[in-house]
Amino acid sequence: MSDYLAEFTPPHRILMGPGPSGVNHRVLQAMAAPLLGHLDPVFLGVMRDVREMLLRVFRTSNDLTLAVPGTGSAAMEAALCNTIEPGDHAVIAVNGYFGGRMADVAARCGAEVHTVNFPWGTPVGPDLTALEDEVKRHPRVKVVGMVHAETSTGVLSPLKDVAGLAHRHGALLIADAVTSLGGEELDVDGWDVDVCYSGTQKCLGGPPGLSPITVGERAVRAFSGRETRVQSFYLDLGLLRTYWSDVPAYHHTAPISLVYALREGLRLVMEEGLEARIRRHAVNAAALRAGLEALGFELFAQPGYRLNPLTTVRVPDGIDEASVRRALLTDYGIEIGAGLGETAGRVWRVGLMGDSSKEENVLAFLSALERILGAGEYEVAQGAGVAAAQRSLAS
Amino acid sequence: MSDYLAEFTPPHRILMGPGPSGVNHRVLQAMAAPLLGHLDPVFLGVMRDVREMLLRVFRTSNDLTLAVPGTGSAAMEAALCNTIEPGDHAVIAVNGYFGGRMADVAARCGAEVHTVNFPWGTPVGPDLTALEDEVKRHPRVKVVGMVHAETSTGVLSPLKDVAGLAHRHGALLIADAVTSLGGEELDVDGWDVDVCYSGTQKCLGGPPGLSPITVGERAVRAFSGRETRVQSFYLDLGLLRTYWSDVPAYHHTAPISLVYALREGLRLVMEEGLEARIRRHAVNAAALRAGLEALGFELFAQPGYRLNPLTTVRVPDGIDEASVRRALLTDYGIEIGAGLGETAGRVWRVGLMGDSSKEENVLAFLSALERILGAGEYEVAQGAGVAAAQRSLAS
Repeated sequence: MSDYLAEFTPPHRILMGPGPSGVNHRVLQAMAAPLLGHLDPVFLGVMRDVREMLLRVFRTSNDLTLAVPGTGSAAMEAALCNTIEPGDHAVIAVNGYFGGRMADVAARCGAEVHTVNFPWGTPVGPDLTALEDEVKRHPRVKVVGMVHAETSTGVLSPLKDVAGLAHRHGALLIADAVTSLGGEELDVDGWDVDVCYSGTQKCLGGPPGLSPITVGERAVRAFSGRETRVQSFYLDLGLLRTYWSDVPAYHHTAPISLVYALREGLRLVMEEGLEARIRRHAVNAAALRAGLEALGFELFAQPGYRLNPLTTVRVPDGIDEASVRRALLTDYGIEIGAGLGETAGRVWRVGLMGDSSKEENVLAFLSALERILGAGEYEVAQGAGVAAAQRSLAS
Repeated sequence: MSDYLAEFTPPHRILMGPGPSGVNHRVLQAMAAPLLGHLDPVFLGVMRDVREMLLRVFRTSNDLTLAVPGTGSAAMEAALCNTIEPGDHAVIAVNGYFGGRMADVAARCGAEVHTVNFPWGTPVGPDLTALEDEVKRHPRVKVVGMVHAETSTGVLSPLKDVAGLAHRHGALLIADAVTSLGGEELDVDGWDVDVCYSGTQKCLGGPPGLSPITVGERAVRAFSGRETRVQSFYLDLGLLRTYWSDVPAYHHTAPISLVYALREGLRLVMEEGLEARIRRHAVNAAALRAGLEALGFELFAQPGYRLNPLTTVRVPDGIDEASVRRALLTDYGIEIGAGLGETAGRVWRVGLMGDSSKEENVLAFLSALERILGAGEYEVAQGAGVAAAQRSLAS
């Protein structure tokens, strides 16, 4: 029986898992501000600010750009259930757990789902023949879905060519950018992505609970051509759009405190500059990879497609991966992630996202890992990982 | 163009609308605590604490009791979409806007929806003949839905008799307790309610963004007898239940900060005592009603069924209701709600929920209202409302 009446103070953690990432104190303080009503003109101004900044981080001018009131999976479902009507064909490129989830959600929306599999650890592409063949095989495919940054494998897949492929066949591209927005290049308008969504708790540096989404004109036209209603009321983007418009109508009670937090998180992105932020994610990820390789670890994701916000590393034979993670958490306060789906038990997932993407975290993790492994059976050259990371950072 | 780069400091508000209500500073501070990972053992302990306390406020021993990661409408959708399969019959009692929303959501879930209307301002019942006739009219009605505390009209409807009615005909009762949980008597087990959900931002005194739900064994059996999958992945209670279990599996990234807030809000409920809290809501609502009636206002909801957390009052002829609300907000920092649906333009909705249910708010509102009306064309005896409220509080 837990002592639920006791005061709760969380222990200190360095969040280097697949998300949530560490949240800047300014963002935490924003959540402690007293609430406004969800139709208060001042709060509607906060929503406008959030929207202005989301347009910039998505690099889009899409009018339908807002934050869905749920975590990333809610936005995935919003993207799919607003687009798909029962019987529509959807082709989903699957190269990891979240591609599989997209296929699951699309099927629940009533789609005829056709998956095209790419090996875990590799991107969707560059050879898109199989994907295009699958799209051609079915009449009037409505949706092509794919994950930009696959959190289960640490792989980044190029979006632009798949957008072109989808459009050649009259389909819409839905892209999951949960782990890329704010941490990797992403150009919604330039790449002509029709629907793109993310989460707040990864590279945007906010707490989880909201998921930004943007929808282009081609997809908006598809929405208005629907013959059936969107199966979800809560995630109906037509209703959400009205709430986020200049003449808002009640739909749901916005999670006020999380919207405050998102505004402050996005302000931090603007202050740093989107390009500088993406560069920071790249620099720290390079140092982490250098350190891990210097320790003899093998990276899981295919070279050239490695995600900067999240690095996957193979667990060597003879190491109990769970006990290493537990020691990191318990003795050093460092959280990293286990594998997920096919990678469960085989990889660690080390996140460097948002505020968590910083030198000191790279070095703290590598030195803790060296000590934990050195204390066990596994031979590592103490300091070799840290030194390699330092050289990478200095270069 | 808004200055989205500016620091944001919300103006002071007394939240007396239909929710969110004012949030205690301890709950605000809980949100400012650093994040834990959503599978961190310490965070899972926080979830267990939340669940323990939810069992107590719902007055249930239902194993399936948790907080849905979205606002109240998300829990409404979770309740309906987990219960209903396409083609199922659902009978929804509608005596206000949220009953209508239940019917809308049930239809989106594929139900054959049959509504039974009760005049706005009156409860569902006490005469349940029409409702029972409608249930008898259709073969195997799966669900009877109703709103316990109708936020659009300020009416409380007894649940127990409708639960009995539903069960006599093999149906499940789904009850919306968004505006009653923590502020009105509610006895899920004692009244044999099958599915009951609420929100955090009303009488529980938390920020919006989570919605507690509890599901009894009869409904759980219906879930496991489904022939189709739940149409929503995000709101699939089978998956959510696993995440909230003793052996949690990843489903979504919990809104960590909101779970902290809910834990602290529930602790405040436990410290006050549920019965004392409900009594506080009753005492302050009685004072508000006395004050409004002393000023010559007519209450909207039928006597005997008036909700304590939310009072609806008719706007007298000749008063521009929007300009009064605007003056309250702008000149006094007091938010009250407009009507909704059929009551739009005809009533004000004055909330006294959670932390907002306190004497000083009643008196501040009444005196501000007296001054605003006194400054206009409308004749009110200055001080009469405040005096009546004070007498009510003293009695």
